[in-house]
Amino acid sequence: MKRGEINRRGFLRASAISGAAASISSAEGPQSASESTRDVTRRLAAWAVTSRKEHVPAAIRREALRTVLNWTGCAVGGSRHETVEIAVRALKPFSGPEQASVLGRKDRLDVLNASLMNGISSHIFDFDDTDLRTIVHPAGPVAPALLALAEYRPLSGADFLHALIVGVEVECRIANAVYPQHYDVGWHITGTVGPFGAAAAAGKVLGLSEQQMVWALGLAATQPVGLREMFGTMTKSFHPGRASQNGLMAAFLAGQNFTSSDQPIEAARGWANVLSSARNYREITDKLGDQYQIAFNSYKPFPCGVVIHPAIDGSLQLRADNRLTADQIARIDLRVHPLVLELTGKKAPRTGLESKFSVYHAVAAAMVYGRVGEPAFSDRAVRDPAVMALRERVSTTVDEAIGEDQVRIAIMLKDGRRLDKFIEHAIGSARNPMTDSQLEAKFKGLAEGVLPAGRASRLIDFCWNLEQAADAAHLARLAAA
Amino acid sequence: MKRGEINRRGFLRASAISGAAASISSAEGPQSASESTRDVTRRLAAWAVTSRKEHVPAAIRREALRTVLNWTGCAVGGSRHETVEIAVRALKPFSGPEQASVLGRKDRLDVLNASLMNGISSHIFDFDDTDLRTIVHPAGPVAPALLALAEYRPLSGADFLHALIVGVEVECRIANAVYPQHYDVGWHITGTVGPFGAAAAAGKVLGLSEQQMVWALGLAATQPVGLREMFGTMTKSFHPGRASQNGLMAAFLAGQNFTSSDQPIEAARGWANVLSSARNYREITDKLGDQYQIAFNSYKPFPCGVVIHPAIDGSLQLRADNRLTADQIARIDLRVHPLVLELTGKKAPRTGLESKFSVYHAVAAAMVYGRVGEPAFSDRAVRDPAVMALRERVSTTVDEAIGEDQVRIAIMLKDGRRLDKFIEHAIGSARNPMTDSQLEAKFKGLAEGVLPAGRASRLIDFCWNLEQAADAAHLARLAAA
Repeated sequence: MKRGEINRRGFLRASAISGAAASISSAEGPQSASESTRDVTRRLAAWAVTSRKEHVPAAIRREALRTVLNWTGCAVGGSRHETVEIAVRALKPFSGPEQASVLGRKDRLDVLNASLMNGISSHIFDFDDTDLRTIVHPAGPVAPALLALAEYRPLSGADFLHALIVGVEVECRIANAVYPQHYDVGWHITGTVGPFGAAAAAGKVLGLSEQQMVWALGLAATQPVGLREMFGTMTKSFHPGRASQNGLMAAFLAGQNFTSSDQPIEAARGWANVLSSARNYREITDKLGDQYQIAFNSYKPFPCGVVIHPAIDGSLQLRADNRLTADQIARIDLRVHPLVLELTGKKAPRTGLESKFSVYHAVAAAMVYGRVGEPAFSDRAVRDPAVMALRERVSTTVDEAIGEDQVRIAIMLKDGRRLDKFIEHAIGSARNPMTDSQLEAKFKGLAEGVLPAGRASRLIDFCWNLEQAADAAHLARLAAA
Repeated sequence: MKRGEINRRGFLRASAISGAAASISSAEGPQSASESTRDVTRRLAAWAVTSRKEHVPAAIRREALRTVLNWTGCAVGGSRHETVEIAVRALKPFSGPEQASVLGRKDRLDVLNASLMNGISSHIFDFDDTDLRTIVHPAGPVAPALLALAEYRPLSGADFLHALIVGVEVECRIANAVYPQHYDVGWHITGTVGPFGAAAAAGKVLGLSEQQMVWALGLAATQPVGLREMFGTMTKSFHPGRASQNGLMAAFLAGQNFTSSDQPIEAARGWANVLSSARNYREITDKLGDQYQIAFNSYKPFPCGVVIHPAIDGSLQLRADNRLTADQIARIDLRVHPLVLELTGKKAPRTGLESKFSVYHAVAAAMVYGRVGEPAFSDRAVRDPAVMALRERVSTTVDEAIGEDQVRIAIMLKDGRRLDKFIEHAIGSARNPMTDSQLEAKFKGLAEGVLPAGRASRLIDFCWNLEQAADAAHLARLAAA
C-alpha cells in the first residue's frame, strides 16, 4: 500500500474530525480531463472572492480560532531564536516603514518583512499546526500575511478569521491535489502551497476581483519556496516565512493589475504539472464552500514533526505507567510508519535542530526527561550522555500496517521484563486532538520568558474572542514585546 | 537528434566564440558518481570566493563590459513600461530607505526592491543578453543585485565587473548542468538559476567565507522563480527581477550565518534532482576558472526571443535585397528549428506582449515595416491590418536539420516568382555577433525618450571604461532619470 493511500484512506478516511462538521471529499474514480482540468484556478479564485463569513459553519470558525491561538503561541515562542535574530539583523537595514510588529520582539518592520519574520518564528520549533492530510503547516504562510495587513489597514477580527479560513482552504486544496507525489519529488509543501494561501487570504482582505485573484494565484505559483533538502537547517523555517511574503506580495501586485497566467495551476506548464508527478484537480474544486480544509488542522503536543509524535506519546506513557528510569532500559524496539524513517531517521543528530529529525533521539529524550518540550531538542539534550547512551539502544522497523498516528513499542528491561504499548491514535492526531485547555497550556509555555506576565492570558482571551474584535491588529500589539 | 545535442554540439561546438579565449568544456562520456557528485556546491563556492580579477583574461572582461552596456540599455529602455509602473506603485509603500536607483526613473528604493525593479525593467522588451548554450539571460538577475549593492557600499568598477563575471559563471554553469531537461520540465531557467548568480555575485562583494557562500547558494536554491506558463504576461519580466532579489537576500542572510544545506545543488533532494529530470555536474566543476561562461553571452538585435531572430533576419534581408513590399507577397514558408514553434508558435497574438511569442507576427511585421524594434511588437502593430493579413499567409515546418541560429525561408510572390534564403548564422548569434558600435546604437535607441539628450553617450563611455571607475554606483546615477 502506498503512503498516500495509507494517509488518505487508512488514517483519515475512517476518522471523525473533532470539532468540525466537514466530511472528507471524494477524490477517487477516473478523472475526466474535460471536467476536471478546466478553469481550476478560476473556480478557486471565484470561490475565494465570493465566500462570505456568514456561510461558514460555527465548528469551522471554532477550529480557525484554535489555529490562530496555536499559531500565535508558536510565533511568540520562536521569536527570540537565533534564526530570527539573524534574519532581523540581516534584513532590517532594508525594511520599509514601521508598519507591522514582529511578534515577541520590539522590532517593527514594513508589512512584507514582518510577514517574513513572523512566518519564520512560527516554524522555529516545528511546533505549529499541521494539516492531517498533507502535513502542510497551514497557518504559517497565511496568518503572518493577514496579521501584517491588519496593522496596515482596518480589519475586523471576524474578517481576519474569514480570510484565514479562505487562505487555508486554497492552500490545502492545492496541496491535496498533489500530495503525496509533490512531497516525494522533494518539495517542502508548506513553502510551495503557502504562497497560494497567503495570496488568497491577503487578496480577500484587499478586495481583489476574480481576475485579480487569478493573477495573484499566478504570481504565487511562480514563486514556490522550499526544498526538503533544507530540513535540519535554519532555512527550513525560512520557507513558511518567505511563502507568506511571496503570497502577500502577489496580492499587492495583482491588486494593481500586474498580469499573470489565467491557468497558473492547471496549464500544461502550470504549477501542478511542473512541480508534481501526479495531480487530482477534483481535490481543488469538489465541494468548494461545503467542506472546509481547516477542519483537518491539528496541533502538536511536541515541538517536532508530527510523524514521531506516536513514538513520543507511547514512550511517555510507558515511562509514566511503569515508573521507568532510563537506566532500567536494555533496548527499545519501535515498529513505525514508513514516513517516520524517511523524515526522522537521523541516528546521531549533532545539533538541537537536527535532533528534531531523529526518532531515536526523541524516544531517548522522552525516556530520560519524562517530558518533551523544546528543551528536549536543545543542543544540550543532544550531548546529554544519558540521552546519547539510550539513543543507541533504540531500533526501528518499518511496518506498512502501522498508521501515521500509530506506533508499536516494545521495551526490554535489564531485569528481563518486556513492556509493550500500541498507540492507536497519538495525542494531537485527528482522533485524539489537543483540547482547548491543552492548547492554552501550550501557549503559556511558549510565551513564558518572552512576553510580560499576564500578557499570555490576555492574548488567549483575545484569540477566543477574535470574532467580536473591532480591530484584528490588537492581536499583533498584544503579542509584540 | 535531440535539442540539447543540436544546441550543444551542432550550434556551439563548431563555433569560435567572438571576443573570447574560451573553448567549450567537455561534458560527455560516462559520469562517475563518486567523482562528479561530491561537493559540487562547495567547489563552486570555493572558486567564487577565491577568484581574483587579475586572473580573468582580457577578452572575458571585454565581453563582460559588453554585457553591462547591453543590460543597462535594456533596463533603461524598459523602465517606463506599464509593468514597471505597476510594480513600483504596488510595492513602493513597503520599500525601505532610498538606498538605490531604479534605472530610467526618479524612484529610489531600498537595495532589495531596487534589484527587483531593475531586473524587471531589463527583461521587459525581451531584448536582454542571452547565453547561447541555455537561453539564460545572464545579466538580468546578476547586474541589478550588484548595482544596488554598489549604491549601498563602496564598490569599484573593476570589482563590480569581476563580481558580475563570477555571478554569471555560477549561474550559467548550473544552467549547463540541467539544460535542456530542466527547461523542458517547464521552468523559466533565468528565474531558477538567477538566484544562484545574484547570490554568488553579491556574496563576492560582501566578502562571504566559503561556508557562507555555500549557504547563500542554498538559500538561492530553495527560492527558484518562474514557470514558463507565465510567458506572455507581465510575470515573465518579474522572474529575473525576483531572482535577483532572492539571490541578494540570500547573500545578506548567509553573510550573517543564516544556515542552509551544505549540498543544496547536488544532494538527493537538492535543486538539480528536484527541478530537473537530468543533470551533469561536470558542467559545474570542470575547468572552473579556466573557461568563462560569459564568453557565450550574446546580444539581441531584435526585442524578442532569440529563437525567432533567424526568421526576422532572413525576412529583413529578403525584403531589402529584393525591395519587396508586403502586398507583393502571396505566401511565406519557413523551415525552422523545433524550439521556434515550441516557444513562439502563437498564430494570432492579441497583445503586443503576446506578439513576441509569435514567429508569424514577427515575420509579417518585418516584411511590413522593414525594421523590427520595440514598436513592431506593440498593441498597435498586432492590430495593424497589413500585418494581420500577411501573418495569416506565413506557414512553418519544423526541420530538425535546422540549427537554432538558422532558418530557411521561401517567399512566393503574387507574380509567381519564388525567393529563397538560408540564414546560416543569424545576426546576434555566436558566429555573427553584434559589433560594439551596433551595441551602442541599440543602447541609444533604448535610452531615447527616457534619459536626457547626451546622457546616453556618457553612459556608453562609462560602461566601456568601467574598469577604471573608482565608484561603480556612478553607473546607476547616470542611468537614473
